[in-house]
Amino acid sequence: MPKNAESLQRAWDLLVAAGAVVAAIDIPARLALDYRATARATPLDWALTIIFLADMLRHLHRAGWMGARSLPGTWKPARRYAGWWFVIDLSAAIPVAAFSAPPLLQLLRLLKLGRIAERMWHWRRAEFQNPNIIRLAFFFFWLALSTHWIACGWLALRGASADVDQTTNYLRALYWSITTLATVGYGDITPSTNVEMLYAMLVMILGVGVYGYVIGNVAALLANMDPARVRHRELVDRVTAFMRYRRIPAGLQRRILDYYEYLWEKRLGYDESAAISGLPPALRTEVSLFLNRDILQKVPLFGGASDDFIKAIALEMRPMIFMPGDYVMRAGDPGEEMYFISRGTVEVVSAEGDVVYATLTTGDFFGEIALLLRQPRTASVRVVDYCDLYVLSVAAFNRVLTRYPGFAVHIRAVAKQRQEANEKHQGWNERRQF
Amino acid sequence: MPKNAESLQRAWDLLVAAGAVVAAIDIPARLALDYRATARATPLDWALTIIFLADMLRHLHRAGWMGARSLPGTWKPARRYAGWWFVIDLSAAIPVAAFSAPPLLQLLRLLKLGRIAERMWHWRRAEFQNPNIIRLAFFFFWLALSTHWIACGWLALRGASADVDQTTNYLRALYWSITTLATVGYGDITPSTNVEMLYAMLVMILGVGVYGYVIGNVAALLANMDPARVRHRELVDRVTAFMRYRRIPAGLQRRILDYYEYLWEKRLGYDESAAISGLPPALRTEVSLFLNRDILQKVPLFGGASDDFIKAIALEMRPMIFMPGDYVMRAGDPGEEMYFISRGTVEVVSAEGDVVYATLTTGDFFGEIALLLRQPRTASVRVVDYCDLYVLSVAAFNRVLTRYPGFAVHIRAVAKQRQEANEKHQGWNERRQF
Amino acid sequence: MPKNAESLQRAWDLLVAAGAVVAAIDIPARLALDYRATARATPLDWALTIIFLADMLRHLHRAGWMGARSLPGTWKPARRYAGWWFVIDLSAAIPVAAFSAPPLLQLLRLLKLGRIAERMWHWRRAEFQNPNIIRLAFFFFWLALSTHWIACGWLALRGASADVDQTTNYLRALYWSITTLATVGYGDITPSTNVEMLYAMLVMILGVGVYGYVIGNVAALLANMDPARVRHRELVDRVTAFMRYRRIPAGLQRRILDYYEYLWEKRLGYDESAAISGLPPALRTEVSLFLNRDILQKVPLFGGASDDFIKAIALEMRPMIFMPGDYVMRAGDPGEEMYFISRGTVEVVSAEGDVVYATLTTGDFFGEIALLLRQPRTASVRVVDYCDLYVLSVAAFNRVLTRYPGFAVHIRAVAKQRQEANEKHQGWNERRQF
Amino acid sequence: MPKNAESLQRAWDLLVAAGAVVAAIDIPARLALDYRATARATPLDWALTIIFLADMLRHLHRAGWMGARSLPGTWKPARRYAGWWFVIDLSAAIPVAAFSAPPLLQLLRLLKLGRIAERMWHWRRAEFQNPNIIRLAFFFFWLALSTHWIACGWLALRGASADVDQTTNYLRALYWSITTLATVGYGDITPSTNVEMLYAMLVMILGVGVYGYVIGNVAALLANMDPARVRHRELVDRVTAFMRYRRIPAGLQRRILDYYEYLWEKRLGYDESAAISGLPPALRTEVSLFLNRDILQKVPLFGGASDDFIKAIALEMRPMIFMPGDYVMRAGDPGEEMYFISRGTVEVVSAEGDVVYATLTTGDFFGEIALLLRQPRTASVRVVDYCDLYVLSVAAFNRVLTRYPGFAVHIRAVAKQRQEANEKHQGWNERRQF
Repeated sequence: MPKNAESLQRAWDLLVAAGAVVAAIDIPARLALDYRATARATPLDWALTIIFLADMLRHLHRAGWMGARSLPGTWKPARRYAGWWFVIDLSAAIPVAAFSAPPLLQLLRLLKLGRIAERMWHWRRAEFQNPNIIRLAFFFFWLALSTHWIACGWLALRGASADVDQTTNYLRALYWSITTLATVGYGDITPSTNVEMLYAMLVMILGVGVYGYVIGNVAALLANMDPARVRHRELVDRVTAFMRYRRIPAGLQRRILDYYEYLWEKRLGYDESAAISGLPPALRTEVSLFLNRDILQKVPLFGGASDDFIKAIALEMRPMIFMPGDYVMRAGDPGEEMYFISRGTVEVVSAEGDVVYATLTTGDFFGEIALLLRQPRTASVRVVDYCDLYVLSVAAFNRVLTRYPGFAVHIRAVAKQRQEANEKHQGWNERRQF
Repeated sequence: MPKNAESLQRAWDLLVAAGAVVAAIDIPARLALDYRATARATPLDWALTIIFLADMLRHLHRAGWMGARSLPGTWKPARRYAGWWFVIDLSAAIPVAAFSAPPLLQLLRLLKLGRIAERMWHWRRAEFQNPNIIRLAFFFFWLALSTHWIACGWLALRGASADVDQTTNYLRALYWSITTLATVGYGDITPSTNVEMLYAMLVMILGVGVYGYVIGNVAALLANMDPARVRHRELVDRVTAFMRYRRIPAGLQRRILDYYEYLWEKRLGYDESAAISGLPPALRTEVSLFLNRDILQKVPLFGGASDDFIKAIALEMRPMIFMPGDYVMRAGDPGEEMYFISRGTVEVVSAEGDVVYATLTTGDFFGEIALLLRQPRTASVRVVDYCDLYVLSVAAFNRVLTRYPGFAVHIRAVAKQRQEANEKHQGWNERRQF
Repeated sequence: MPKNAESLQRAWDLLVAAGAVVAAIDIPARLALDYRATARATPLDWALTIIFLADMLRHLHRAGWMGARSLPGTWKPARRYAGWWFVIDLSAAIPVAAFSAPPLLQLLRLLKLGRIAERMWHWRRAEFQNPNIIRLAFFFFWLALSTHWIACGWLALRGASADVDQTTNYLRALYWSITTLATVGYGDITPSTNVEMLYAMLVMILGVGVYGYVIGNVAALLANMDPARVRHRELVDRVTAFMRYRRIPAGLQRRILDYYEYLWEKRLGYDESAAISGLPPALRTEVSLFLNRDILQKVPLFGGASDDFIKAIALEMRPMIFMPGDYVMRAGDPGEEMYFISRGTVEVVSAEGDVVYATLTTGDFFGEIALLLRQPRTASVRVVDYCDLYVLSVAAFNRVLTRYPGFAVHIRAVAKQRQEANEKHQGWNERRQF
Repeated sequence: MPKNAESLQRAWDLLVAAGAVVAAIDIPARLALDYRATARATPLDWALTIIFLADMLRHLHRAGWMGARSLPGTWKPARRYAGWWFVIDLSAAIPVAAFSAPPLLQLLRLLKLGRIAERMWHWRRAEFQNPNIIRLAFFFFWLALSTHWIACGWLALRGASADVDQTTNYLRALYWSITTLATVGYGDITPSTNVEMLYAMLVMILGVGVYGYVIGNVAALLANMDPARVRHRELVDRVTAFMRYRRIPAGLQRRILDYYEYLWEKRLGYDESAAISGLPPALRTEVSLFLNRDILQKVPLFGGASDDFIKAIALEMRPMIFMPGDYVMRAGDPGEEMYFISRGTVEVVSAEGDVVYATLTTGDFFGEIALLLRQPRTASVRVVDYCDLYVLSVAAFNRVLTRYPGFAVHIRAVAKQRQEANEKHQGWNERRQF
């Protein structure tokens, strides 16, 4: 179906819905205020009849369109449309007021509201976000209509007072409905006959149900509003309980809570790989590549590597978070990972931590010698502010290399070259010049 | 117990329940409206007495039937039935009105409602679906009865007015009960004596409890209505937060969200193997077999395989979802899986993606050469629309083969044959002719 | 502390609590009904003074008892008790009415309720079951007291009417409080002065809060009532969605749902090892042993084994559930497990399933040859009704054997013997004679 | 921004907020009580104008401060501040009463409340604890303001009565608002004209919404109050169901439930490593070190070890809980772990359990010989009361040793020495003398 026809259809649907709502408001009100006067058809009656008949034709046409394989000329589409919906649409289309039928039959028009209900049901099923809000909105629509009907019913039972005009009569009935439904119950208008009492009781019971539904929905809405926050708080609670039981010193406690606050601020789900692990492989590769390509292409070591190699490496990189003052590595440790800075700043310092060789920031990387040579770290790396790093382990690197034997040859050559030129601190300087 | 006897029993239970409810409605109303007039037994009284006595006999018989090992002729069954239930049943069966006992004693009949309560309790325990709806339905049953009783109590306290008929008297009392329970409180009927005030206070406190229970239930009902949707939304929220933090490009974000929408539409729990992993082995095999047998029997490679072999293979197949435009495999990649299309369409294309060799759809399969020969893919496969595939890895295939050494010989022969006939693109054509 | 002293203490605590509650009810009522008449001390006043003073002595003593290291004779305990609680206890103990102090000061007695509040708080913290119910019960206690106070306040503001007696005066005030708090609001008693209006407004706002708290608690109570059921239903929903999407045949669907219903009926958490995995090792061993010892001691194979060996074997057994008609094993399959029937019945049948060799039930075992010899199963085993089995795999059995080399020698001897005597069907007969 | 300036800013923000709230209370009240009298500007009007103008200057300045790179002298900051906030701030600053404008225009001042709303929104986003409480507090602020406005509106509609003073007039209107919003509805003040009825209906509908929101919030608050308790109870429920189904003996059941109660009392999350596993590596090391350093430094075996070695060992220690009467190890078992007592008491006993060699308590350790020599335990260890132990396995110990080859040499020497001096029971005595 072309785009244009679709929006036309939607406009038509809206028109039909508006017609149904107008009928649902107008007809009961007229019946309640002056039953006898409603025996004559108004222009609105005719307009609704025309709109609803046209809508029936459209449904007939659509049934034909969707059953396109049936031969033209045969009346199969009509048969497919027949059934409950056909009866409903037809009942709503009859201009009862034009015939000498009892005016009450005009309420048949209200059946057309079934179309709105059906559309709402479909809409709610398709939409997966904020089900409570949609449910509540639909509920208020029906509640408003029902309140109107309750007011009309009350008016019909009591009869309109001749002392005041029709607007006042209707407003009083509506006022009574709302006073009762909202359980305020001023008591300035109360039922006097038995039938009125029964009616009032029904409305009160309905009022309790309405309350229950509104409050239940709001409660569900508020309870499900921010599950991430609930989960985070639960986690922090557990950690706090642990720290209190084990009497962790206040300073350390503060730092741990700071860390969780940082996680919450950045809305990080503690493990970003979990967030993307649910994706199909192609999407996952694409996300990893997007996250890491820029940084990977800057690494001289991967200079001549194919796109596929880069992709494979990207998939192996794992995110880590470091806090200010943490040491990512220490001089002398065995080197087993390479690091890429995704966000934040680190300092390359001497083993004693007093000399700062270099400051690296977002987009930089370090520790790449570990991928080539089994040798201890030549310098320490200290974190300056909160740092999101990506880590590539030697094991993962080698795993990828085995799948790209051509590039592995090149890497081994570079490694040998490095080994020969190996001296203290040179690692850092060298890379800077690369 | 035969089927027939069971439905007979159920009908009898229903009759007894109906009798108890009628008694619970009728007796308090008659006592409240005209206390002295209730001293004579009505036909209903006699009918209830007969039904309840018959019910006692049935319980006696059932106690005997369930304790079948006791010797006939001894009165053991009677002893087993004795106890609280016997007292309750007997009290309810006595036609108090026939004796010159105080009419208030007729309320003993209401004890029979205990049977209904017991049955409800059993029912709710057995049924594991929608506990809130069942609980709410039961609650409304008891609430309706209680409201009736409250109205009767109010009537008894105030005395029926002689000015109006009994129906109006009762309706007014009921109207007061509901007005008060629903916390509407018009104030047109208010307590005047101290006892009435105390009674009104009790009803109001009860009303608060009723409200709390109804609203709490509705809230719990709505909160637990669609946990799958809640979980899905939570997941999407997390992914969205991650994407925003990492500044994933809009296009990729859109595609990732599309993917999750597809999952939701199909109501897939992300991993269908999780859904069936909780099943016992025999059921699991059967489900896997049902899902994959048709497709497996079409594979020429498995032509002469035994049923058990097919079953074993079916258990090893893993579902995967691909999105439009994804590449399932690319020409030149090492082939390590065979694929079966469960739903959707793919295109077999040349390495450059410009020539379409074939279009495969639901029920087709591809990549079966990988099971036989360690060779690179001879063509790429691109997904046209959302595709549910089943994957069979070479490792799993070989694992199964080791358990079926006879069939393994056959497979090796086929493999050798293929190897000899091996040429570019032939793989695809060949299978088409098989 | 000896048991006896503890229950004495509890009785004393109850007496003090009762005294505080009586004071909290009596004093405000007397003040509100007749302010001037309260200036004289009643016997109750003196009784409360005595009880509360005795309670202070007890607290002093206890402070001394718990600080047992302080030298006797010094007044350290007193110092430890001093502080807020001392002031509160003392204020509550003063018989204000005996002095010519303003009667309003008698309300100081109500401070003693703080002791009840403190005790409740401790109780709620210690108790981990049904927190909502306890919270609600405490809340209703305070709500009842507050309603009484509100009524007294209203009475004090309006002044008691001289036309009616004091009971009626008080009841009317209480009736107004409840009518307002429960938001019924008949309107037969309404505030007339500004102060009364302000008071009424405060009570109404309090009423909204009370409602919110009661309903919120009930909702939380109902929502958390049966989380196991919620989780189970969620699981079944997911499986149902999967089955519908994959169009599993109705018969298979029915059987899968039957299986879940069975799980629910037995209240099995799908994996009983999960239930006990949280236990410390000693408890875990004991549970496993209890579950399996009887059955293990019947196995002739384990005849001469030590207790420790049986324990080790018990820990290795895994529970499994089979459905009616399932085959636990099939003749010809490689045998890799031994089975113990924990509940249910199975049939040992021929490969074709037409000849029944034996029927085994709760407490029996089968397949033990698999632990000794690598040979195919000599018969099939079919499940008759729902069966809870325990499985012992050969791998686990061998793992245990390596830790008991002595017993391993014995087992190898038995295995050799069996091998020599090996014939078809004999396996089953042999065991029966053992 | 320096600390001082920040608290100054906060004070200023508070002043502006107070001004906005005063205006929001004062202006509608004056308009409602005496519309004509409000045409003259009061001192308050002038004060608010001055404050709000000063606030605008501050915002202008801040816009400049934050856009510090723009050249001074140009009016860029002004441009950045322009927009909605500028219009709002300006409207609120105009002293309408000073001009001959319609008094109703004075309500423009209320726009300044937007600043409060904005600040609240920011605050709620930043704070991750107790979102429901903050939400509820904010809600009550707005509800109180709204109730005031509703009362003013009602007063304006009805006109102030000339019979009573202004305070009484206002109080009556407020009383009506609260009576209606709280759905009490005494009915002593009811609308009489159509407009008043419409107004009352709106207020009632608002009242339903207010109720829903308050109750929903309280419910969500209570439901999320103690998720740890809910989870714990769920677990215990599951274990209880399992024990009942498997008919675990009462004594064992009691001990298992005792264990869970102990866990709950100590607020232990069953696995303390889970609580700290979410931390970044540096923090995790620090926590482990804090927990174990004291105890590790007491071990003579680790006497000459470096700090890094101690750290590495600390990270490998796993917590375990033992119950009274449990045996941590038994004489003759192969020794594979060393234990450190974090809390509690154990007894070293003979194999038969009748001779107590030693009693160890918090801070002690045992079983360290297992780290050196592969020999059976020389004594049993029985737990006296609930014991939190840390376990160090031989495997983990050796793993750490490989990274510290220097210390490994030392350990091997000690092991050899021990082996030579090896005799029964000596292990225990020796350590005591160390």
